[in-house]
This record gives sequence, C-alpha cells and structure tokens, in this order.
Amino acid sequence: MRVKKYCIIVAGGSGRRMKSAVPKQFLLLGGRPLLMRTIERFNSFDDTIEIILVLPSEHHSLWRGLIREYSFNISHKVISGGQERFHSVKAGLSCVNETSLVAVHDGVRPLVSHDTIWRCFADAEEFGTAVPFVEPADSVRIIAGDDSRPYPRNEVRLIQTPQVFRSSLILSAYDRDFDPSFSDDASVAEAAGVTIHLTHGNRENIKITTPEDLTVAHALLGIMN
Amino acid sequence: MRVKKYCIIVAGGSGRRMKSAVPKQFLLLGGRPLLMRTIERFNSFDDTIEIILVLPSEHHSLWRGLIREYSFNISHKVISGGQERFHSVKAGLSCVNETSLVAVHDGVRPLVSHDTIWRCFADAEEFGTAVPFVEPADSVRIIAGDDSRPYPRNEVRLIQTPQVFRSSLILSAYDRDFDPSFSDDASVAEAAGVTIHLTHGNRENIKITTPEDLTVAHALLGIMN
Repeated sequence: MRVKKYCIIVAGGSGRRMKSAVPKQFLLLGGRPLLMRTIERFNSFDDTIEIILVLPSEHHSLWRGLIREYSFNISHKVISGGQERFHSVKAGLSCVNETSLVAVHDGVRPLVSHDTIWRCFADAEEFGTAVPFVEPADSVRIIAGDDSRPYPRNEVRLIQTPQVFRSSLILSAYDRDFDPSFSDDASVAEAAGVTIHLTHGNRENIKITTPEDLTVAHALLGIMN
Repeated sequence: MRVKKYCIIVAGGSGRRMKSAVPKQFLLLGGRPLLMRTIERFNSFDDTIEIILVLPSEHHSLWRGLIREYSFNISHKVISGGQERFHSVKAGLSCVNETSLVAVHDGVRPLVSHDTIWRCFADAEEFGTAVPFVEPADSVRIIAGDDSRPYPRNEVRLIQTPQVFRSSLILSAYDRDFDPSFSDDASVAEAAGVTIHLTHGNRENIKITTPEDLTVAHALLGIMN
C-alpha cells in the first residue's frame, strides 16, 4: 500500500459516563493519556500516516499541556470538533486534500491491533470501504415490540473502528447534512449509496467509556505489548 | 423470596479454545479454579441455594482432587453431563424435586454480580422467567445475504446467565427431544411456548472462553471485590 493514508481521530467525548472530571480520552492507560496511546498505535503501524486529531476547542490547551508533560513527539494536526460526531469527522475531512485512504477512528480505542489497521487499509484499497467487526461472544436476542426473539449470533456483527474509505468516496458521502440516524461513518457512507465491506477486527479493540472499561483495557494492554 | 432455589451450573466445555490442556472451568482466577469462584458467587448470595454441578464424567476425579487441594467446603451435588448442553441441563433438572425457582448458569461466568442474581430470581418469581442481558457497547450490523445492514443497537440484547425459571415451566420445557436450534435455556423454554422476560445483567459477567477473557476477568475481579 503506497497510497497516501490519513487517520482522523475523533476525541469529542465529555467523559460524563466516566464519573470523572477529566474527559476519558485524557485518562491514563499504562501511565500515558489514552489518546496518546491511540495515536501511537497508528504511528507505530506506519509513521507516514497523516494524523488529524479532532478535539473540542475547550480541550486544546489541556492537550498542549499534556504534549509537553509527556514529551509527546508524534506529528499531528489538531482541529476543532463540531456539535455531533458527524460534524467533527466532516471538519477532519476538510484537511484531506489528495487522493488517499482515510481512516476514521475513535480516540478512546487505543487497543486496535496493527493487524486490524493493516486489514482495514488493505480492504479499503481493494473494496473502497472497510469496517472492522467482531462476533458477539454471547447469544443474542432482538427486541420486537414488547417482546424479544432469539437471533443467530453468527449473523450479528459488533462494529469497531478504524472505518477506512477511499477519500473520494468518504468526501462525497460527508457532503450532506446531518441526520440523527448516522451512528457511524459506515452509515453516512451508506446514505450515499456505498456498499460497506466488513473486515475482521480484534476483540481487544474495545471502546473505553466506563471506569470498568479502563480496568479491562489495562489488563489487555499487558497482554498486547 | 422464601421459595426454594436451585442453581444448575453447567461446566461441560473441553477448553479447546483456551489452548490449554486444563479445561477452562478449572483454570485459576485470582488463585482459585474459576468454577469454584462461580459456585462461591451463588453461595455468598444465598447459602440456602441448592447447587447442582453438571460435569463430564471424565472430570469428576479431577474435581474431587481440587476440592481437597483448595479445602472447598460449599455443599453441592455433582452429576454427569450429556453430549450437548441441552442434555447436561436436562440431567441437572432430574435433581429438582420440589416447587422452586431454578437458575441455569454457565460454569465459566464467575463474575455474575449479586445484584444480577437477585434480579433474576425476583423477576422469575414474578414473571416465570428471567434472562439477563446487556446492551452492546458497539454499533451493530446484521448480515443479510452477501451484504450487511445497520441495526439499532438499543434493540439488540447480548444474553448472559443465570437464566432463571419457575421449576414447573422449565421441567416441562425440557421434557422434549434435543433440537440443534437450542442455543440456551431461553430458546428451549420458548419452544414450549413460554414468553421470555429480559432482566438487566451486569457487564462484568463475561463468559470466559479464551486466554484474553481470563486476563480481562482477572482485572474485573479486582474491581468487583
């Protein structure tokens, strides 16, 4: 893959679910803010990836302070996020100015594996899109009105990031107005008529949104490194 | 809840996915075989619960050895499992001989909370059945032929155990032949026309089936105790 690659890292959460005054993307994981770990994961995979960090304006000075404190020296662009995740990604896309592959990744998923990143870029190059998934470990039911029914778990996919797209495709998909049904980038691309290609993710690639998730992430970090 | 309570603990797995010669239910979690931790969790909730452990015959002597080694003194009945989980639960049900509430629990879910156990028994007493669930943390897609489509994650339920039933109801549900579509006890009960009541589980209540799960469980054990 010699094509130019971008990674838009969206870190807009306010951390309310963390019962913490510090937004969750700045909490420490193995002694470093987890957002740094997320950026490091992409940089150690391929240090030519251009990293665009989308951060609420009110966190920019906090982030600059952390960069100094931790001597963080991975080059990246910082831009201001919007009201919804959709607006933040759209802002990030304004920095994409050549034919490329564009990954969009949650700032609070520092445990994405290099294999997952590799597969997503490779599949996006071949198919136009790549969205990583894992199968649920538990059996699954689907709510149907007041009732529920069993659903075959091997037909269910839990969706992760990075969601990777050819730049032409994601830029044109985001050239539309926000709709509350947009749950992730795949759903925005689908609204533009794009077919989503599913790619195997890695089970450790959890989204850290609660204190329990952070504890689990600490444990997983130990076995991944 | 003064009604008599049983807990059938099914521990039939061979541990192939664990890349371990020791079946996963006997692996150590915080210094004790995880099956002991599972039994302890129910016993510390209510020491009048009658515990029926369903174990493949070839593991009975190993289990007796562990009981001696760890001075495990929680009273329980050990019976032999069958070919499928269905047959093991059916064997366990043969020990249920009075009007009661019957929990069926995976031996490899030692992190069920007392709150979850309490809710499941209470709801089963009121509604006849109680099946614990959590909502997925990730967005969800459903496979549709060669393609996939987004599915609202707030309509998806990941199903755990203990699945608790009024004894009359689960005994009559299991009075039938095995069908490969039976993925859990809820699906057997549904085949008998029973409506499943869903109850909030706890996110830590993971099924330990891989070495990564065991690492995560270690971390979760630390914050639950």
